[in-house]
Amino acid sequence: MRRLNDALKDCATDVDAALDSLLAETGGPRARVVEAMRYAALSDGKRLRPFLVMQCAGLFGVAGAAALQTAAAVEMVHCYSLVHDDLPAMDDSDLRRGRPTVHKAFDEATAILAGDGLLTEAFAILASPQCHAVAEVRSELVAGLAAAAGAAGMVGGQMIDLSPQRGGLDLEGIRQLQSLKTGALIAFSCEAGAVLGGADPAARVALLAFAADLGLAFQIADDLLDVLSSPQEVGKPTGQDAAMEKATFIGHLGVEGAQTEAQRLVERARARLDLFGQKADLLRDVAEFVVARRR
Amino acid sequence: MRRLNDALKDCATDVDAALDSLLAETGGPRARVVEAMRYAALSDGKRLRPFLVMQCAGLFGVAGAAALQTAAAVEMVHCYSLVHDDLPAMDDSDLRRGRPTVHKAFDEATAILAGDGLLTEAFAILASPQCHAVAEVRSELVAGLAAAAGAAGMVGGQMIDLSPQRGGLDLEGIRQLQSLKTGALIAFSCEAGAVLGGADPAARVALLAFAADLGLAFQIADDLLDVLSSPQEVGKPTGQDAAMEKATFIGHLGVEGAQTEAQRLVERARARLDLFGQKADLLRDVAEFVVARRR
Repeated sequence: MRRLNDALKDCATDVDAALDSLLAETGGPRARVVEAMRYAALSDGKRLRPFLVMQCAGLFGVAGAAALQTAAAVEMVHCYSLVHDDLPAMDDSDLRRGRPTVHKAFDEATAILAGDGLLTEAFAILASPQCHAVAEVRSELVAGLAAAAGAAGMVGGQMIDLSPQRGGLDLEGIRQLQSLKTGALIAFSCEAGAVLGGADPAARVALLAFAADLGLAFQIADDLLDVLSSPQEVGKPTGQDAAMEKATFIGHLGVEGAQTEAQRLVERARARLDLFGQKADLLRDVAEFVVARRR
Repeated sequence: MRRLNDALKDCATDVDAALDSLLAETGGPRARVVEAMRYAALSDGKRLRPFLVMQCAGLFGVAGAAALQTAAAVEMVHCYSLVHDDLPAMDDSDLRRGRPTVHKAFDEATAILAGDGLLTEAFAILASPQCHAVAEVRSELVAGLAAAAGAAGMVGGQMIDLSPQRGGLDLEGIRQLQSLKTGALIAFSCEAGAVLGGADPAARVALLAFAADLGLAFQIADDLLDVLSSPQEVGKPTGQDAAMEKATFIGHLGVEGAQTEAQRLVERARARLDLFGQKADLLRDVAEFVVARRR
């Protein structure tokens, strides 16, 4: 895992630099929303999704620098979703990544606008020739990101999470919720690498299958962290699922059952990458990492 | 104006049909957010921006049907901005287009998500080959819409509108606010027509100059409606600017001065279209319409 940790750290450094430059500070009375966008995006995140973009693109010989804009766009959409999900009308969270959430550090209106701004900026980045020289590629990236983020993706998942039916979801319902709320963007992260790299259909199918297993394992690990960790360890409130009486993987499978299922998914995710040989070793390590992580 | 009213009505019918089909109802626990997106988008709007897209595209021989997807995408972004602007944390409005606002008809969380969903869907539409067969065109539309909607456009304008500096803006500051908050999307509507039609640089410059004058005249007319109309007439609360002690064009110019300035801008906007000859007659009428409208 030493090698993975170094690679994640390098990726985070590059992504932070890209975000810092893409979200340039501005003056005048609109400066505040840009400041809030920067606060939301330039935080101490794992940058898992950008890492997936860049590693998947790398499987097809795409250099890190050539995938960095896409990686930054995906991270912006992830950050926007956190800002809006944390709002008082949604999950009402005060703490995120060990710091006050955006509506606490600024105010609610600014947080709504900062989320809107990050979502919009992500599409601006993907549509720019600086992202990729070929317009077909840019257009496919925009379409893929919009599908992952919209009502049939993240937005739909968050709606389910807030729905009255949420408490009584069965295991299939929880899987469906997860595949929209967190799975869709993780899947797009891998798909974006394939799009940037001009992957053949077999490679795409393999990466999407990898992403589906990875995303589900990630969510089960998140549920486990919510039960087994302290807020200090994860940088956000814990015990939330139980407090809100949400049906979770753990509720249905138990702690041990969930751990076993997560491990099974990790093994399967790793096997999905067989056709890429050693080139995919870091992606295989990522699968281990998402269930072993402490936050 | 008879001909314009008919044309606006035809356009609204087509745009409503397109929005109805693009925002297809769905089942399951995420149905609610799609329902809210439909509520926000399928309202009794003037559809001014879609009309601008389609009329400007028409100047270059683009058939209405070929501009309809782009027109619908622009309207979705307009509707998203209304949903978020109306939220309690922002302008806290209960009434819009004569009906309860989305957070009143549904709830706050659903309204935030519905806005997010509409914004995202707009980019999905523009990136789809159904919007335009040429990827360069799609990509340019996405880039243009993102620039108009983001922190250097609508989001930035709304931030200024909520800023502590808002009350004391001078005339230039109000112009700047307007050009971001409402002007940018009106300008993009015209620009999108030019992009779809492959306009030459001179035609683009003329349309953007037309759009700038039109947008400013539109905002001054809005300020006048806020002062001179009843909520019943405009379908939303009036007297808001004075109640919130916002600096407005009227505050600086007086009612008569504002009316004169709006009329001057309308004349100039109409003259910007000289190079298009009679083909632009409906666009010239639109310029008259935005200052003569009653809501």
